[in-house]
Formats: sequence, C-alpha cells, structure tokens
Amino acid sequence: MLDRAGGLPLYAQLVATFRERIESAEWPAGGQLPSERDLCSLFDVSRITVRRAIDIAEKEGLVKRVHGVGTFVSDARMEQALDRVHSFERTLAQRGLVASTTIHAMSVSVSDLAVASVLRLEASEPVTNLQLIGRGDDEPIVFYDSFFPTDVGADVTAAAERAGAAGVPFSTLDLYRDAVATVPDRLEQAFEAIVADRFLAGLLAVPEGRPILRVTSVMSREGRPIEYRRACYRGDRYRFSLDRALPAFH
Amino acid sequence: MLDRAGGLPLYAQLVATFRERIESAEWPAGGQLPSERDLCSLFDVSRITVRRAIDIAEKEGLVKRVHGVGTFVSDARMEQALDRVHSFERTLAQRGLVASTTIHAMSVSVSDLAVASVLRLEASEPVTNLQLIGRGDDEPIVFYDSFFPTDVGADVTAAAERAGAAGVPFSTLDLYRDAVATVPDRLEQAFEAIVADRFLAGLLAVPEGRPILRVTSVMSREGRPIEYRRACYRGDRYRFSLDRALPAFH
Repeated sequence: MLDRAGGLPLYAQLVATFRERIESAEWPAGGQLPSERDLCSLFDVSRITVRRAIDIAEKEGLVKRVHGVGTFVSDARMEQALDRVHSFERTLAQRGLVASTTIHAMSVSVSDLAVASVLRLEASEPVTNLQLIGRGDDEPIVFYDSFFPTDVGADVTAAAERAGAAGVPFSTLDLYRDAVATVPDRLEQAFEAIVADRFLAGLLAVPEGRPILRVTSVMSREGRPIEYRRACYRGDRYRFSLDRALPAFH
Repeated sequence: MLDRAGGLPLYAQLVATFRERIESAEWPAGGQLPSERDLCSLFDVSRITVRRAIDIAEKEGLVKRVHGVGTFVSDARMEQALDRVHSFERTLAQRGLVASTTIHAMSVSVSDLAVASVLRLEASEPVTNLQLIGRGDDEPIVFYDSFFPTDVGADVTAAAERAGAAGVPFSTLDLYRDAVATVPDRLEQAFEAIVADRFLAGLLAVPEGRPILRVTSVMSREGRPIEYRRACYRGDRYRFSLDRALPAFH
C-alpha cells in the first residue's frame, strides 16, 4: 500500500492515506481512527511513523486527539444557520478559511421551461444566467447557478463584475445587500442530497459520485420572483442548521 | 440491452429500464427524456412499445408528459416544511404513500463519547437507543437512530412498542405528541449530504453510494437535551423546505 522504494517518506504517505480515507468517508467525520497499534499493523510501519503522521494530520485539521481516548476524524464542514443571513465570507471565516468568488459564466438567453415557470415568465422570454464558484482557501466549495428576469439580472451581473474586479468574495445574496436596488424580501428554499455528476465533479474538483447538498432558492420582492438559484455545496464541506422552538404538542 | 428471447414483454422491460435510470439519477428528476423517436433507436423497439412504456411509467408516477413539449422525469421527493411539525404519516400522504414504521432495534447501553457529550451525560452513563425504519408503501425511506437519557428512553420505547403493536406509523416526534410525558420544547437540526455506506444501503434497500440526506437533531426540554437523533433519508425521496422573510438589507 505504501511505496517503500523511495519517493515520499512513509509518514507523509501515511498522511496522504489518512486524507484519502477521510475525504472518501471511509473514515467518517466524528469517527474514531484505529488505535496506534492497529495503524502500525494495518500499514506495516513503526509507531514513530504513525505518531508523526497523526501529528501532521492534526496540524492540518484532519483529525483531533482526545487525551486518553483516541484520535477522531475532524468535521471540516462549514455550518450556515438558516435563521440568519450571513455573508459567504463570514460563513467561511468560521472555519478559518479565506473566501473568494469567481464568475464562471454570465449570459442572457431564452429561459427553459422550469426556469420560466419559477420566474413566472413566458417560455420564450429571455433570462439572465449568472454562474459563480465560491471557494475557501482557493478550493471550490459551492457552485451557484442563478437565473433572473433581465432587468434584475443586468443590475446583479454589473454588481458581480464590480465585486469580482475588486477581489471581494460574494454570493448573489451578498450582492443584493451591497449593490443592487431590487432587494428580495422573501426566500423559499429546498434542501436535497444528490451525488456529483461529471459536470459538477469538474466544477467542484471532486470525484464523480461524491455527496452534494443542493439548495434551490427562490428569492422574491413584493411577491415577484427575482432570482431562481440552484446552489450545489460539497457535502463534505457544508451543512445547514436550524434552531427553533417547538409548538406545544398537547 | 432488452431481452428478446421471451420472458417479460419489451414494453415492461423498457419501463424497468426507465425506473433503473431514474433511480440511479442517470435521468435526473425534472430532466427531459429523449424523444420517442430517440427512445425507439436507443432501445431498438417500435414507437408502439415506447408509447406503451411511457403510458405505464406515467401511471406509476415515474414520468410526466407535457403536451407538445415532451416527457419529464417526475420528482418523487416528499417535501417536509421546516417551519411546521407534521407527522410522518401526513408528510408521506402528500405523495399518496401509505406510511408505516418498524422498530429495528431497541437497547440500553453505555453511551459513546459523542452521544454522551450531546446529551450532557458522563461517558459511562447508560443511554437508551431506539432505531426505527420509516417506510412509504412498504419501501424504506428513512432510518432514525435516536439516543435518550434512560428515564425519557423508557417512556419513548414503551410508546413505540404500543404504536408498533397498533400498526400506527410514527417518528419519535410523533410519539412525544401522542404518548410521552416529557415533550421537547426546542429542536436544533443540522442538514448534510452523505452517501450510503454498506450499513445504510442495507437498511434503506438502495445500492451503496446513493445520496442520503442526514438530519441530526437535538431535542430539548427546558434546556435539558432529551433526544439526540440521526435520521438518514433516501436522497431521491426526501427534501426539506423553508420559507422565510428576509431582513431588510439596507
């Protein structure tokens, strides 16, 4: 399994193996790693090599040692609370990541049936499409695919270009806050689990078949839908959370 | 691809092929099927066979014809709104499915570190574990894995056994409503996308690697955590939704 013919030192190969197993969820977040002794026999390496690999994996944030108990896989997911609206930058900053955003594509074209129906346009009317890739420490984390009626789209894409040129990280929601006249007052969202197809895998730099959290949003202003957004988050890097009071049952 | 040597008629094999492609998301929900003409050449069958297969697939709810446009893959996901608390039975009834619940396992054991920490127990204290499988039309849809302090656990498991014996469908939240004295007044939840490992794949009767929506909940009563639940929903059968007013940005 490890390459003993030279190349990378064994402890570095072991760290790479840990990373591979954690990213593929063979070792799931929150789970316990095999004991040091078992890691020695699993990979046929010395205790010193195992300890050095765990040291490095801990510094990289992959795992966490709990004294007297063992070593656990860290959870690398950003958490976004659904009862607040935080900027993309602030959400990533929680995990110590530097956010950045790149514009993947921008176009105006005839809307497809699904988009037209959500935005309440005729099937032949044009829509503005804006595709963004949100990154944390330069690694792709989310792909935003947004559609707007063209009047709103013109404002949002202009704001996206300004933010992009200024090197400011943003999601479309951040643009409304900072630079667009028509701001939404209502947000409907749906949360689904899917797996990455070839297209998404390419955009998010993960292998095909990895879990993706898909969040479909309709933002509206005084009852008029102004944005239809499909956001695909890497499942291993994102979660959404909600804290609420329950109604009395009895 | 189709078996022409007898056995199932071609149109029935074609329906099975449609189902296979839809379940594997090769034909994703909301996507358009190839045209009738293209289906004929893809599967080397007559137009009559294709039409008959689409008729059946439409009756089964797999696809939906849109006049003059084409045939689209139906979305088979149940939608559960996060701003209301609906019973498991009612959520499934939306899609015309008959809900049922089976008790997969029930036990009292020493809590693991993660469970003890969430329930604010000592690591050596016992916890009650209740595992349920929720079904729609007898097909597994969700696996609930719940942990309780033993006093609450005794009440909840007794209520689960009564509901099970009576043949009533339920989630643990339904049990609180109907039959448990200690009802939660607060619910914290996190939503994540994962893929099915061998264990989950077996429980939910899907192939390994299929998308799973994992919802982790902590239910508490006057600040005391009374249940820690990890629910795993089939990604192709469930979504959560939320509709909310946005704060003024300016």
